[in-house]
Amino acid sequence: MPNTMLAVVKPEAAPGADVREVKIPCFGRTDVLVKVKVASICGTDLHIYEWDRWAQSRIHPPLIPGHEFCGEVVAYGDEVTSVKEGDFVSAEMHVACGKCLQCRTGEAHICQNVKIIGVDADGAFAEYVVIPDPGIPLEYASILDPLGNAVHTVLAGEIAAKTVAITGCGPIGLFAIAVARAVGAAQVYAIEVNEHRRNIAKQMKADFTLDPSKQDVNALIMEQTGGLGVDVVLEMAGHPSAIRTAFDIVRRGGRISLLGLTSKPISLNFSEDIIFKGITVQGINGRRMYQTWYQMTALLKAGKLDLHPVITDRIAMKDFSKAMERLKTGVASKILVYPNGTK
Amino acid sequence: MPNTMLAVVKPEAAPGADVREVKIPCFGRTDVLVKVKVASICGTDLHIYEWDRWAQSRIHPPLIPGHEFCGEVVAYGDEVTSVKEGDFVSAEMHVACGKCLQCRTGEAHICQNVKIIGVDADGAFAEYVVIPDPGIPLEYASILDPLGNAVHTVLAGEIAAKTVAITGCGPIGLFAIAVARAVGAAQVYAIEVNEHRRNIAKQMKADFTLDPSKQDVNALIMEQTGGLGVDVVLEMAGHPSAIRTAFDIVRRGGRISLLGLTSKPISLNFSEDIIFKGITVQGINGRRMYQTWYQMTALLKAGKLDLHPVITDRIAMKDFSKAMERLKTGVASKILVYPNGTK
Amino acid sequence: MPNTMLAVVKPEAAPGADVREVKIPCFGRTDVLVKVKVASICGTDLHIYEWDRWAQSRIHPPLIPGHEFCGEVVAYGDEVTSVKEGDFVSAEMHVACGKCLQCRTGEAHICQNVKIIGVDADGAFAEYVVIPDPGIPLEYASILDPLGNAVHTVLAGEIAAKTVAITGCGPIGLFAIAVARAVGAAQVYAIEVNEHRRNIAKQMKADFTLDPSKQDVNALIMEQTGGLGVDVVLEMAGHPSAIRTAFDIVRRGGRISLLGLTSKPISLNFSEDIIFKGITVQGINGRRMYQTWYQMTALLKAGKLDLHPVITDRIAMKDFSKAMERLKTGVASKILVYPNGTK
Amino acid sequence: MPNTMLAVVKPEAAPGADVREVKIPCFGRTDVLVKVKVASICGTDLHIYEWDRWAQSRIHPPLIPGHEFCGEVVAYGDEVTSVKEGDFVSAEMHVACGKCLQCRTGEAHICQNVKIIGVDADGAFAEYVVIPDPGIPLEYASILDPLGNAVHTVLAGEIAAKTVAITGCGPIGLFAIAVARAVGAAQVYAIEVNEHRRNIAKQMKADFTLDPSKQDVNALIMEQTGGLGVDVVLEMAGHPSAIRTAFDIVRRGGRISLLGLTSKPISLNFSEDIIFKGITVQGINGRRMYQTWYQMTALLKAGKLDLHPVITDRIAMKDFSKAMERLKTGVASKILVYPNGTK
Repeated sequence: MPNTMLAVVKPEAAPGADVREVKIPCFGRTDVLVKVKVASICGTDLHIYEWDRWAQSRIHPPLIPGHEFCGEVVAYGDEVTSVKEGDFVSAEMHVACGKCLQCRTGEAHICQNVKIIGVDADGAFAEYVVIPDPGIPLEYASILDPLGNAVHTVLAGEIAAKTVAITGCGPIGLFAIAVARAVGAAQVYAIEVNEHRRNIAKQMKADFTLDPSKQDVNALIMEQTGGLGVDVVLEMAGHPSAIRTAFDIVRRGGRISLLGLTSKPISLNFSEDIIFKGITVQGINGRRMYQTWYQMTALLKAGKLDLHPVITDRIAMKDFSKAMERLKTGVASKILVYPNGTK
Repeated sequence: MPNTMLAVVKPEAAPGADVREVKIPCFGRTDVLVKVKVASICGTDLHIYEWDRWAQSRIHPPLIPGHEFCGEVVAYGDEVTSVKEGDFVSAEMHVACGKCLQCRTGEAHICQNVKIIGVDADGAFAEYVVIPDPGIPLEYASILDPLGNAVHTVLAGEIAAKTVAITGCGPIGLFAIAVARAVGAAQVYAIEVNEHRRNIAKQMKADFTLDPSKQDVNALIMEQTGGLGVDVVLEMAGHPSAIRTAFDIVRRGGRISLLGLTSKPISLNFSEDIIFKGITVQGINGRRMYQTWYQMTALLKAGKLDLHPVITDRIAMKDFSKAMERLKTGVASKILVYPNGTK
Repeated sequence: MPNTMLAVVKPEAAPGADVREVKIPCFGRTDVLVKVKVASICGTDLHIYEWDRWAQSRIHPPLIPGHEFCGEVVAYGDEVTSVKEGDFVSAEMHVACGKCLQCRTGEAHICQNVKIIGVDADGAFAEYVVIPDPGIPLEYASILDPLGNAVHTVLAGEIAAKTVAITGCGPIGLFAIAVARAVGAAQVYAIEVNEHRRNIAKQMKADFTLDPSKQDVNALIMEQTGGLGVDVVLEMAGHPSAIRTAFDIVRRGGRISLLGLTSKPISLNFSEDIIFKGITVQGINGRRMYQTWYQMTALLKAGKLDLHPVITDRIAMKDFSKAMERLKTGVASKILVYPNGTK
Repeated sequence: MPNTMLAVVKPEAAPGADVREVKIPCFGRTDVLVKVKVASICGTDLHIYEWDRWAQSRIHPPLIPGHEFCGEVVAYGDEVTSVKEGDFVSAEMHVACGKCLQCRTGEAHICQNVKIIGVDADGAFAEYVVIPDPGIPLEYASILDPLGNAVHTVLAGEIAAKTVAITGCGPIGLFAIAVARAVGAAQVYAIEVNEHRRNIAKQMKADFTLDPSKQDVNALIMEQTGGLGVDVVLEMAGHPSAIRTAFDIVRRGGRISLLGLTSKPISLNFSEDIIFKGITVQGINGRRMYQTWYQMTALLKAGKLDLHPVITDRIAMKDFSKAMERLKTGVASKILVYPNGTK
């Protein structure tokens, strides 16, 4: 085994990133060293790349980003029990402390002391990455992290036989279309300004794809739902106008699950938007450890999810900056990175 | 309009039933008179026909049985607001009192004073039937009553991404296969001794169809689930050995939803069967008014349910006794009765 | 019986109200005429009196306001079954349509077509008021409407063994202290700027009463909860700074239930305030029909609630304007009005 | 520190137990050695002592029984982080594997591979006991194990403002009275044949204490609840007639939570007892890890539970056999054992 590897490195507190040769990371007694097969690019990686306000407050360069990946186990500490050399793995990259109130009561996904590999520690845009003993010895693929976001959001409340609107069709929104259909949503409305993404939403079999820049989304949904509004809104855009739409189209007594992050403050009329309608608004963070993982793998193994239209690009690591450009325009949706050679 | 009609009548406290000419029923200010287009035969009707112990304790002949039906509105009282002449309707035939604790708290399906049309009052195996103002002015078909049982049972707890076993594949069990698949069950195991019913279960796309008279169901399910057992059992046979199987195959922390009625006492080891496993056992009664109806019609309208394999026979009213014989052998599953002429 | 009565009348679209002689109202076949024994004054009545923006958009004068009351049945329509002459009654003054999706699924408290007596129709600040057949033939007192708000809010999620903060100690907030204690809240923090109200909160046995104008509420609560924050916040102030406090002090995975109305837009950072913390925000509207009523009367009958400190004033109808002044300063909390003579 | 200690030892597969001198146990890197201050006697210990059918199938002598205790940390392994020497501790003695589906989804209390200290490994009726790193560094007392059973059972469903019957007033049933009252049960009916226990139930402030050997419990409860039955039954007797009563007195749509173990099969009429009534039956096992512990310690710290009447005896270890005799007659309820000298 070599001593060095190629990795995408954020070298300093500024926009951009380099592909560099760095040392292969060390691992502890409960850690696993993984040779990365494929990594995929998340919106968070774009934030880090562009060095926006959030990135400035959270990231301490130098850092290797990347938290969606899969690969093969090449070495591990002497207390690791759930994997062996050669196993094909992915991982929950939010590492919970295991000791706070939330961790002790089945809410580890909102651990008070969570660390995220690829954000708070070196991540997976590299030939090798170190992860904690994954515990669930299943074969995951690199997109399980964002798919888990979608599964967690869709299943955070009742969904069977409900009408569902998804505001924002980035990769997680697109995955959510597949999940919502698989678990019996009566109708799925996909709301998205970008034409490339709307086209993928159609391929994912959304019942309706709406363009809020040209159509009166509120009027169309009220007409389709007999004036009621939708039972559930999954907000995945993080854009003020999408959030406004979410509160407008949800029916009395309905649910809005918020996943899309926004750095700007949002203004609401609490009386009209929340209280009189008697709605429930949920903040969705990560994936439930490990309930979401069981749900997700059960659906995948049962063949209930077809996610292929979402994967638009497969790149080698050296093309990282080009991929970022395609992401920004919306031409690309989920991009897979092959650190050890494009397959 | 004529004064008399043909109807299946249970004339006295004894097995059997006749097809007779009787008066068309009167209707009150909040009632609707419906010309029956199709009625379908339920296991309850077979109990009444055979005059078993339950029937003897509940039924007061003369009675026109029949509670699964659809038809056309021909007349209605002056306070009826939700339908008009010519509307195509079905109905919730459990009539809740609207005033007891359960009715007042969204649990009308277990009303303390419920009356069932076709059991406690003249029903739908007739050219005309009187029903209360249906309130939900949607187009229902005659099988909505048993389909509602299936929807209520499947959705009485978490189901998405869960493994599900259905013990007993009468019509409601078969419908439950379709519903469980539509709302994202990971696997559906259909357990049934009757070969005709197992064949229909296959057509309904159960993942596994098992014959407990020849196969070791417990061992097969443990093998398929990695030794865990299934997350959910929907018990729809009402037979002691099926109930025994339900408690054997459910996993720790799982759910058993009981719909199948049995007149014999069942013996359990509470410690081993319920307490150590930490399971939840639910009694399922009818359909939730009207939550189940909204769920069911949403799934039907969205095209999520294909129920055709379950409907095996379509008969004219005069063939009622022959149909009962086909039901007893299991050759027939759901039988539709056309009181106003076979279509 | 006389033909006329005294009533508080809002005669025109302007601030204020008069006490006038008006006709005793007519009643229909399912209505009940009640001789008002006591009515109490709600914040809503103050809005109507002061003719604020909300009142201008909702109220169509002339109107007799008042929706919290109790009294004695003096007459009723021929289809009323649940009360008789001389019965002592109160009422749910939100009249649900009984026919929309929400009404049909146990969510009548957020009926799409709800009418409120005292807001959309003549109410209870009068010697006589007409109400629909109350259905639940129990002896209610005039404060059951706001107490029901408190019960609904407290019981809208898990509460036993939880730490609870209440922002805003108007009458409903004060009632909520009693309810939260009765159902096993571990600690109750009452947060209120008005000294009169904080004093009553102490009498209601809040564990901590905090003055946000002088104390660092956030720091104090973090200290008391070991840095976690509280499990539940019941927001009953409707003031921007109280709402800000609610989002600051709720713990990760906690619940905020919003009851307090505010006419101004509120600005939030969705990412930090809702999503990363994984909290649930609920809009609370009225009382669940009739689940809240059962819960409330069960707690009252069992002697679990001592509400006397909240009732600060008992007035005759002629003193209505004076009472409004006392309400504005916070000297008075819940005021009882005796239209037929102070008792 | 000495090398040996006194302990209650079950030496062989037969009734009885001895107090003997044995080696102080070894501890591993994540273990804690505790000097036992007080232990208390559970019904399980009586089963082991009497060597009943369950004990014969589960226990492998020689064994030191005892799983309810508290004491002082005297030593610990080098990976223990949550306690230090001199800390006063108790422990969850069900040790979950941390790796099965149930453990990974917040259901560790029904772990598939659970081991119980005092049943499957040497326990706390000794001067010293070895426990795993307790993780929750709080001061517990020796009765937290059975109190946790009571908290888990009471809070396994809605309880505030509900009528509750408890069948069987052993220590856990008595604790459940305190817990149910603390979290707002509207009425508590304590049902118990033993007069000593009924007297303690009265001291615990049950609203009604009923003797099923002399009173018609069903008729009395129906009268008190207006013919409805109770909302919740907590079954803690494990006796066939108590279980029969539970199913008779629960209302339509109610909950029965089963904690009491019975070695005999129980016969039910599923149709009448469960299905038509639409009830939910739950098996309750242990305590939720660690949700129940948080709830319990929150209630204790807030001073919401007065449990003193339940503790009837305080003994030195040498009087173990005498204590067992007092337990059998019901004169004693919860007995505390002081291995290191009666305090």
